[in-house]
Amino acid sequence: MTTSHTHSLDAALVLASTTAGQYTGHTSPAYWNMVGPFGGVTAATLLQAVMQHPERLGEPLSLTVNYAGALAEGPFTLQATPVRTNRSTQHWTISILQPGADGAPVVTTTATAVTAARRETWSAADTPMPAVPKPAQCQPIPPAFPVEWLRRYEMRPVAGALPKDWDGSGDTSLSQLWMRDAPARPLDFCALAAMADIFFPRVWLRRAHRVPAGTVSITVYFHAGSALLAETGTGYLLGQAHAQEFRNGFFDQSAQLWNEAGRLLATSHQIVYYKE
Amino acid sequence: MTTSHTHSLDAALVLASTTAGQYTGHTSPAYWNMVGPFGGVTAATLLQAVMQHPERLGEPLSLTVNYAGALAEGPFTLQATPVRTNRSTQHWTISILQPGADGAPVVTTTATAVTAARRETWSAADTPMPAVPKPAQCQPIPPAFPVEWLRRYEMRPVAGALPKDWDGSGDTSLSQLWMRDAPARPLDFCALAAMADIFFPRVWLRRAHRVPAGTVSITVYFHAGSALLAETGTGYLLGQAHAQEFRNGFFDQSAQLWNEAGRLLATSHQIVYYKE
Repeated sequence: MTTSHTHSLDAALVLASTTAGQYTGHTSPAYWNMVGPFGGVTAATLLQAVMQHPERLGEPLSLTVNYAGALAEGPFTLQATPVRTNRSTQHWTISILQPGADGAPVVTTTATAVTAARRETWSAADTPMPAVPKPAQCQPIPPAFPVEWLRRYEMRPVAGALPKDWDGSGDTSLSQLWMRDAPARPLDFCALAAMADIFFPRVWLRRAHRVPAGTVSITVYFHAGSALLAETGTGYLLGQAHAQEFRNGFFDQSAQLWNEAGRLLATSHQIVYYKE
Repeated sequence: MTTSHTHSLDAALVLASTTAGQYTGHTSPAYWNMVGPFGGVTAATLLQAVMQHPERLGEPLSLTVNYAGALAEGPFTLQATPVRTNRSTQHWTISILQPGADGAPVVTTTATAVTAARRETWSAADTPMPAVPKPAQCQPIPPAFPVEWLRRYEMRPVAGALPKDWDGSGDTSLSQLWMRDAPARPLDFCALAAMADIFFPRVWLRRAHRVPAGTVSITVYFHAGSALLAETGTGYLLGQAHAQEFRNGFFDQSAQLWNEAGRLLATSHQIVYYKE
């Protein structure tokens, strides 16, 4: 049940289940992108199924989502299976299905995830947060293009915002921005997974030229446990993304997400299709 | 059938199949690690199943492998399914199974892959190969520890070799090395997938302290097509790896692989378990 007090992300992540691992959900108009849902909210939905599974061991460690086809507006079914449970890690396969043209179910999304029971060990943070102005010193921007999901995030660019002039003059793929859910919402694993996909396609920035582009596969590694997420609360995250190679229709995109205190919460990688 | 003229990698990747997508194989003593096969050869085996599938579209674009449990010495079965085929991309789910303690099949490895029909487009290489001495100027090293698979690779470290003194004095996680199959073998996608996992655990270097460690999940993005691999031939690859975060039992490891001409062939990421 959703009420007017339910955050739009929580509403989008509502899954019904009567059998362990079998879920039904519905795409959310609040997170609609151009031809389907924002990929980040799809990733969050897949992770939500793992979080709600009665046999889950530990917390998310990694999540890989493959966008096989755009989800159509409407209901979907989701299957999440713990295929192997070890002493400290658990391996998941997950998929989303929708009825195809002939009514038979078609896979729109495949995913794998690992959850883990983590213990305190020697630790080291080897990727310091870049020295950037604080969130309050960075201006929030209105949605850079008219899609609904952009209104679900507060974004305060630091560097590498969407080009103002699409004049082919680009020379870098690096973006940095402060971000959080709008309205603010205490951070959890699903919200973090979604935000790992918030960056617009690097090819737009690198070329200062907008071409059709879409994520094919994304992987998120979670470095934070739930205690650190709770500590982060409704604070801003600094997101940073850059590409390493653009070649023959596909480029990669790597990202880091720190909290305001400079703790690295997640790192992420994706391979993205682009045209022309 | 393998003969004395068959390269050990080709021998390790032999898969028999009578039904499309269903394979049987056997672990290779030549690529044995401490408690199971070298993870890279397992990744290569999963990709080999996709390469040999009669319905395959295009060439490898991404591969994610989740090491759910160590493969035992002996035969295994492998399933590779093209769950969705689009105009230019095809999505695969793959798994390896072996009989468990009670004889029933147990999943040892899950994977997803994307293959793609690539077209020539605007392209840009944004990760220049570091300026390093040429392979001939770097000394090949003997296996750094006594496991069989290390003898299957020629490794010529440039920087960040395995510490000589395990004295806890480490301060970096960056390694660079020239590498190729030993004996030399023309590069293909499977060999490239294997080499993306060649780097020893970053935690050993960062701490100059050896602790139990093992890859949980690896993702490889292929930027090269088969023409560029053919061009690379039996030449050396420069591999570079570093970690971003070590926290509570897991760290990430990012890698790049260039050919001698400085073309970026693949990028890779993994999340690795470590103890203590």
